[in-house]
Amino acid sequence: MSLLFKNLRIHQIFGANTDVGKTILTTALVRASATLKNEVFYLKPISTGAIQDADDEHVMRHSSTFKDRIHAHCLYRFHVPVSPHLAAQLAAGDESQKIVSDNTFINSISSYVQRCASSANGPAHMYVETAGGVHSPTLSGVTQLDCYRPLFLPTILIGDSRLGGISATISAYESLLLRGYIVDAILLFREDYYRNSEFLTPYFAERGIKVTAIDAPPPKASDASENFASTERYYESLDILPTVLDLNTRHTQRLAELASMPRRSLDAFWWPFVQHGLVKGEKDVTVIDSASSDFFSVYDAQTPPEISSLKPQLDGSASWWTQAFGHAHPALTLAAARASGRYGHVMFPQATHAPALQLAERLLDGPGKGWASRVFFSDDGSTGMEIALKMALRAFSVREGLGGKERKNLGVLGLKGSYHGDTIGAMDACAEEGVYTCEWHNAKGYWLDPPTISIQQGRPVITLPPALATSEALFEPAESDSESWVYDVTGRMGTPLAEIYHGYISRTLEGLKSARGVPRLAALVLEPLVMGAGGMIFVDPLFQRVLVDVVRERDPASPDTPGSWRGLPVIYDEVFVGLYRLGMQSTIPLLGAAPDISVNAKILTGGLVPLAATLASDSIFRAFYSTEKAEALLHGHSYTAHALGCEVANETMSLIEKEARSEAWLAAQARWEAPSTPSSVWSFWDPDFVRAVSHLDTVAEVMALGTVLSIKVKDSQGGYVSHSAQTLLHSIKECSDGSLPSEAPQFSVHFRTLGNVAYFMTSLNTAPETIRLLENKIWNALGTDTSNKT
Amino acid sequence: MSLLFKNLRIHQIFGANTDVGKTILTTALVRASATLKNEVFYLKPISTGAIQDADDEHVMRHSSTFKDRIHAHCLYRFHVPVSPHLAAQLAAGDESQKIVSDNTFINSISSYVQRCASSANGPAHMYVETAGGVHSPTLSGVTQLDCYRPLFLPTILIGDSRLGGISATISAYESLLLRGYIVDAILLFREDYYRNSEFLTPYFAERGIKVTAIDAPPPKASDASENFASTERYYESLDILPTVLDLNTRHTQRLAELASMPRRSLDAFWWPFVQHGLVKGEKDVTVIDSASSDFFSVYDAQTPPEISSLKPQLDGSASWWTQAFGHAHPALTLAAARASGRYGHVMFPQATHAPALQLAERLLDGPGKGWASRVFFSDDGSTGMEIALKMALRAFSVREGLGGKERKNLGVLGLKGSYHGDTIGAMDACAEEGVYTCEWHNAKGYWLDPPTISIQQGRPVITLPPALATSEALFEPAESDSESWVYDVTGRMGTPLAEIYHGYISRTLEGLKSARGVPRLAALVLEPLVMGAGGMIFVDPLFQRVLVDVVRERDPASPDTPGSWRGLPVIYDEVFVGLYRLGMQSTIPLLGAAPDISVNAKILTGGLVPLAATLASDSIFRAFYSTEKAEALLHGHSYTAHALGCEVANETMSLIEKEARSEAWLAAQARWEAPSTPSSVWSFWDPDFVRAVSHLDTVAEVMALGTVLSIKVKDSQGGYVSHSAQTLLHSIKECSDGSLPSEAPQFSVHFRTLGNVAYFMTSLNTAPETIRLLENKIWNALGTDTSNKT
Repeated sequence: MSLLFKNLRIHQIFGANTDVGKTILTTALVRASATLKNEVFYLKPISTGAIQDADDEHVMRHSSTFKDRIHAHCLYRFHVPVSPHLAAQLAAGDESQKIVSDNTFINSISSYVQRCASSANGPAHMYVETAGGVHSPTLSGVTQLDCYRPLFLPTILIGDSRLGGISATISAYESLLLRGYIVDAILLFREDYYRNSEFLTPYFAERGIKVTAIDAPPPKASDASENFASTERYYESLDILPTVLDLNTRHTQRLAELASMPRRSLDAFWWPFVQHGLVKGEKDVTVIDSASSDFFSVYDAQTPPEISSLKPQLDGSASWWTQAFGHAHPALTLAAARASGRYGHVMFPQATHAPALQLAERLLDGPGKGWASRVFFSDDGSTGMEIALKMALRAFSVREGLGGKERKNLGVLGLKGSYHGDTIGAMDACAEEGVYTCEWHNAKGYWLDPPTISIQQGRPVITLPPALATSEALFEPAESDSESWVYDVTGRMGTPLAEIYHGYISRTLEGLKSARGVPRLAALVLEPLVMGAGGMIFVDPLFQRVLVDVVRERDPASPDTPGSWRGLPVIYDEVFVGLYRLGMQSTIPLLGAAPDISVNAKILTGGLVPLAATLASDSIFRAFYSTEKAEALLHGHSYTAHALGCEVANETMSLIEKEARSEAWLAAQARWEAPSTPSSVWSFWDPDFVRAVSHLDTVAEVMALGTVLSIKVKDSQGGYVSHSAQTLLHSIKECSDGSLPSEAPQFSVHFRTLGNVAYFMTSLNTAPETIRLLENKIWNALGTDTSNKT
Repeated sequence: MSLLFKNLRIHQIFGANTDVGKTILTTALVRASATLKNEVFYLKPISTGAIQDADDEHVMRHSSTFKDRIHAHCLYRFHVPVSPHLAAQLAAGDESQKIVSDNTFINSISSYVQRCASSANGPAHMYVETAGGVHSPTLSGVTQLDCYRPLFLPTILIGDSRLGGISATISAYESLLLRGYIVDAILLFREDYYRNSEFLTPYFAERGIKVTAIDAPPPKASDASENFASTERYYESLDILPTVLDLNTRHTQRLAELASMPRRSLDAFWWPFVQHGLVKGEKDVTVIDSASSDFFSVYDAQTPPEISSLKPQLDGSASWWTQAFGHAHPALTLAAARASGRYGHVMFPQATHAPALQLAERLLDGPGKGWASRVFFSDDGSTGMEIALKMALRAFSVREGLGGKERKNLGVLGLKGSYHGDTIGAMDACAEEGVYTCEWHNAKGYWLDPPTISIQQGRPVITLPPALATSEALFEPAESDSESWVYDVTGRMGTPLAEIYHGYISRTLEGLKSARGVPRLAALVLEPLVMGAGGMIFVDPLFQRVLVDVVRERDPASPDTPGSWRGLPVIYDEVFVGLYRLGMQSTIPLLGAAPDISVNAKILTGGLVPLAATLASDSIFRAFYSTEKAEALLHGHSYTAHALGCEVANETMSLIEKEARSEAWLAAQARWEAPSTPSSVWSFWDPDFVRAVSHLDTVAEVMALGTVLSIKVKDSQGGYVSHSAQTLLHSIKECSDGSLPSEAPQFSVHFRTLGNVAYFMTSLNTAPETIRLLENKIWNALGTDTSNKT
């Protein structure tokens, strides 16, 4: 949605307050731009009050010398001289639905601006004048800074030269900055008593912004023509041209900076998970100029001058599965600012602060409810899992009374396809079969081949691993056609398949006792429901539940130590699957079996900064509890429980609670509702779309849960190095989609593939319309591309 | 410095702008408090303008009914009706040093408030009314929000009921929030045309703040007595008591919340590196209510009601060595807000954004200058080191053409006492000798016993490891008594000791070739200059330099492949030592030998949020470069290169550049200056103090470099589990220090020990006065405690 044209330099004018001279200084800028022989566009999106007092009228009245070059326009005009939101309410009367929505408002500005850019003969300038102060409400009542943010126009702040104006100007600037706006200039009237400009000039110079003081206009004359003449003289006397030239320079620099970024990035970065040898050149680099809600604003060097060089691109993988509420959500920014302003970072051992304590209590009352007693903070999913593993291995060692040497030969029980992060400890809890390996990776344990779930030909199918497929268990759900039925773990516990799983797991574990080369198993480690990085593998939850049960049943210890772990400490890696990524806060209620340790990260901070939390039961905690310092869990990172991250996480939790009651959630849940199945099984993706996709010739299987849609395309060569999904769906990212209705927002999609699996992920508040549009794009890409049909 | 009394509820009144009714609404609050039979204190720290118009005069004039209970006071009065900074400038004339400093200003408020608390009979209320808007300048020209911040008084915001007032109120609130202020209430005048309160009430309810609209005062009558009477009637008609009761509740809740935090924290947290069995109870928990510059504001449940329950505690270990500019630095908060507002977090593979690109280029031009070509971002020092190790091991494997099995038996060459983080890969690069170990820790490599540097009895001493101590190398520097001489690595390269080091290292490496149980060495890993977590071990840098040289000399490869690593890839772990923690940007120029890989973290973000950067040379990067995806460095964390962290890091770099030219730095450097030694060798700690400490009976050795002061006390039992340093220096933390002049700020110190080493760490901008006070405290603690003398 953001706008940036090579041929049209646009600035949005915000006022530090109302009545600070926005229109006068904007008129001066318009005239100065015109003297440079530029075509100049002036836009007042909303005007309230009498027409003869309207700002666009003033601009035109005092631009007659340059009439041919200056175009003034107002989009929404109200005659009552009140704030736009009140004017809109009054005009709408009882019919509040008549009030223009933010989307319509922004789109109408965007369309107008694009028309101006297209119509301009040569380089042109544009000034968009806002109303009142920076946070004055727009028609819908959303304040200007938030409402205009998707356009991300560079700004000019008109400072306040009156008493109190220093404060008003700085605060307005800080509000602009909290939304990430670029402030290219500050202008204010020269005033010799309060001398605000003298204070503000060095203050903002330190912050890289030039403040220019401009003579104030003469007092208003009572006679209209005299007034006109004196105002004209005033405008003629001003020397505001240097500011205009500076704005031009900044515009040029911004474009040049963006144009230079791909080359410089190719030269300076070593990207994560990227084979640089496959990056073909500058056009393979996504230059993100800003981001807002679910969209990146991406620079495209190839666009002609009259078309915006910034293009919306849907963040179709929720930025590596982190985003809860899209990018640059004001509430998260304010939470970050609040904690930074109150604490910065304060060290954590034996210390406490409100954001960390609140978050710990929320987690214990949320995903940890009923089983967890402690929260250990760290920085990311990988470190959170390292901590979880250290906890589990120690708890096992202590209970089993293992000596130093025995402790060094412990392993984990897990599932093939697991992924727990990229630090060596987290890697060692995964099999070495996949691509995620390196010199020091030394897989320690045993990994079972799990049954998986998918939708094929419109129906849910459980695919059994080879070890079971030959048995009598060639299985399809008989009881229901609903995909949510397979997630009714409790309901399925008595089925023959549960018995088969039980037998298979028991036999395997028994066999491992005497197996060579398998270390002593000291923990069970699972990604509940979905193994993400391993290829979006939807595991049959019944299998995971039975696995936990079997491990615990085999415990020789007496079962009458309530609250103690049994069999093996069980770790749930909920880094990806937790906190509503799959539509449920935690996978634990669905599985019906609590772990002894769990890990949350990713969505935890709403997708802003790194933070992880490892939750543990009391019996795990007790394994480290003594009076010997050396027996403590000697793990910690410098920024453990950093206040900024914890506060953002608390805000995220609050926003989620609100969102869960939103119309969009309830409607999505209703679409997936099936009788007698857990209400937690639903998706933002439309069930009819999901089933329809599963019927396509190109598609092997599909699955959707919560925000996740996973499509496995047919391909002879699978695995991480396969590019088939990428090839098939390439058109979603690259092509403008002519099949969409022309008034629909055009965007490309930044989606990800794992081998022959393409997956898409929404935020928790992605607009349903956006998801529908995306479903259309996916449908067209899958249907129209025939190159990969097998 | 923060103030919070059980018997005195204080609120600071900020205005959304000037002339919004601060004094009137404050007077109403004062009167309402008085009706509750409370003693009420009104403080106007600065008043400008005629005495008869002064706010404190107005309060007293309209409080005659409660005269016995209401005390109004003004601390700084100026008669010119301009902003305080202009009034102060005018009053000072040419003698600008007469302008009251922020410290003096804040101390005088603090003293006055403490006197009020002491004098109050029973529960009392206090209102501190600011001037103008939130960001109006104080006497020194610093704006109010920043100047008052150390007091951290809870606030009431007086909203603006005029046209534009919605924006002014929201922006003022956001500026308060950027400094972490608690906003307990918003009051504004009821106004029926613009109806700002109608808009603001739900807006702030969503943010947890109650907005109360109060009737506006009657128009001013021309007759003074009539005016007085109508104003009195106005005050009598107001119903502001509910607000006062709400403020009381919030005050009580805040105290109750703080009082409950130790117990709740003991119940919910699993602290890093803490043996919970040694935490005796609630009083062992440091409750951090807020933090500012170098100080925590810590809650003390034991204080009597008339003494502030919040105590300043110096963050004497820079919060685990992270702090660059103290806590809650506004510039870092604003940088965080700016990036969050513009991007949130955006995924990084094959993408770029300005904060990450700028940071990468800065690092390549800073610590990476002359050798590094790439930056790989991650989340903390430990993950940064895991990446470094993966890089080094792969580069070695590729060059040596190792097969899959050989690649699994690689190790590192390092020094005993090393620490690189707590994830398993980082741990495996360290010997297993210390306390930092766990089940999966499998040390892979060989670690040399290094010579160390300390100041003993006023002179620098090099202590050789046992293997060398028996040789002719019983060594003391002869050329100079200056401790900085030992850091003149280049100057020492030709000395006999350099030869001895060379021989020792060469022989050891030769011997390792045929040693059993030592894996093939594939990387050299060093913490240059100081091994931090291992016990603040100051390693002889000559030894580290010779070690790098020997490793590279032994390379059988031809030396004419410029820019390629030789011998072994060399990793410098600069997580702790880099970015001026030791007074130099990087240790590389001092050592005179660049690594092939280095890691920065901790100070990188100025001490706000986790972020790490691994720098690599082109020859390391090339080892992963191919057209095979699986050969890439398959490592990444969800929040890799998060924009917020990168932007804060960029701001930190800019602040450091400024700080390096500050008087405090230049003065500290001058004190340590010695002829013909590298100018990078200096400390914020006073050299005379450091040498004097080294003479004390209780002290074994001492060392200072940059921000770090390390004191090893005499103790028979060393190591991580020793508590001797803690015991000896306990008095610094616990006791109020009667030996300090009474006007000096009183604070306790949150310092840390590693076994028998106590270390202290300042920020890069800690006030010299604070360091001098701290030196005094340390001196007294070391001198007066005799229990540990050996």
